[in-house]
Amino acid sequence: MKKVIAILILTMTVLSCSQKKNDMKTFDPTFAHTVFFWFKNPDSKADKAKFEASLTTFLNNSQYAKTKFIGTAPNASRDVVDGSFTYSLILSFESAEAQAKYQSEPPHLKFVEECSDLWEKVIVYDSKTIN
Amino acid sequence: MKKVIAILILTMTVLSCSQKKNDMKTFDPTFAHTVFFWFKNPDSKADKAKFEASLTTFLNNSQYAKTKFIGTAPNASRDVVDGSFTYSLILSFESAEAQAKYQSEPPHLKFVEECSDLWEKVIVYDSKTIN
Repeated sequence: MKKVIAILILTMTVLSCSQKKNDMKTFDPTFAHTVFFWFKNPDSKADKAKFEASLTTFLNNSQYAKTKFIGTAPNASRDVVDGSFTYSLILSFESAEAQAKYQSEPPHLKFVEECSDLWEKVIVYDSKTIN
Repeated sequence: MKKVIAILILTMTVLSCSQKKNDMKTFDPTFAHTVFFWFKNPDSKADKAKFEASLTTFLNNSQYAKTKFIGTAPNASRDVVDGSFTYSLILSFESAEAQAKYQSEPPHLKFVEECSDLWEKVIVYDSKTIN
């Protein structure tokens, strides 16, 4: 019986670790927050490096953000696709309240202070699940 | 030993079922596909019911789409947020190729045929992870 319990604990531990590792791959449909950034100098490697480092630090320190997807536009394949943005951000939250708290988190304010000079346009779309 | 194996199989089965149940909550950062729809008649309950039913059927039958988030705009809290769209769609894919195949899936074509009259504007943003 002890052996059984030991194996069960080991299995659960391994699965729990892989869950943590995949934390950035979970999506909470309660509240999705999508942001598109258009840079003043979209070809500047220095601006991109600064943005990615600052945004990554912010997200790693956010108490509320889930999913934490940072993207760029692939080569647009169809006319209907807007591939003109420099960066996209897809986050999810467990509630609208959590997203509101995220807006005023110190790591968020620091990111805006460090990087808001880099972009000339931002569009934010918030969504709640229909289910 | 047989008992151990039986318990392990049972544990894995239970976990595998809960994985399937949460399939709509997984996000594949390889390729994100985000669509915003603006309806001709955003207050029409009949149009919304038709769209939700058709889109849900399509996504349930898609071989390629992951995440499958259908959303609407919550009350916009800040000026920077565009809350004017009628529906949002956030999907993820294991590859750019999978997203390309999704575009020509029969359930996708059927959805477009059934619902494209409902919207007056669509914006699509595709993104690939920076990592």
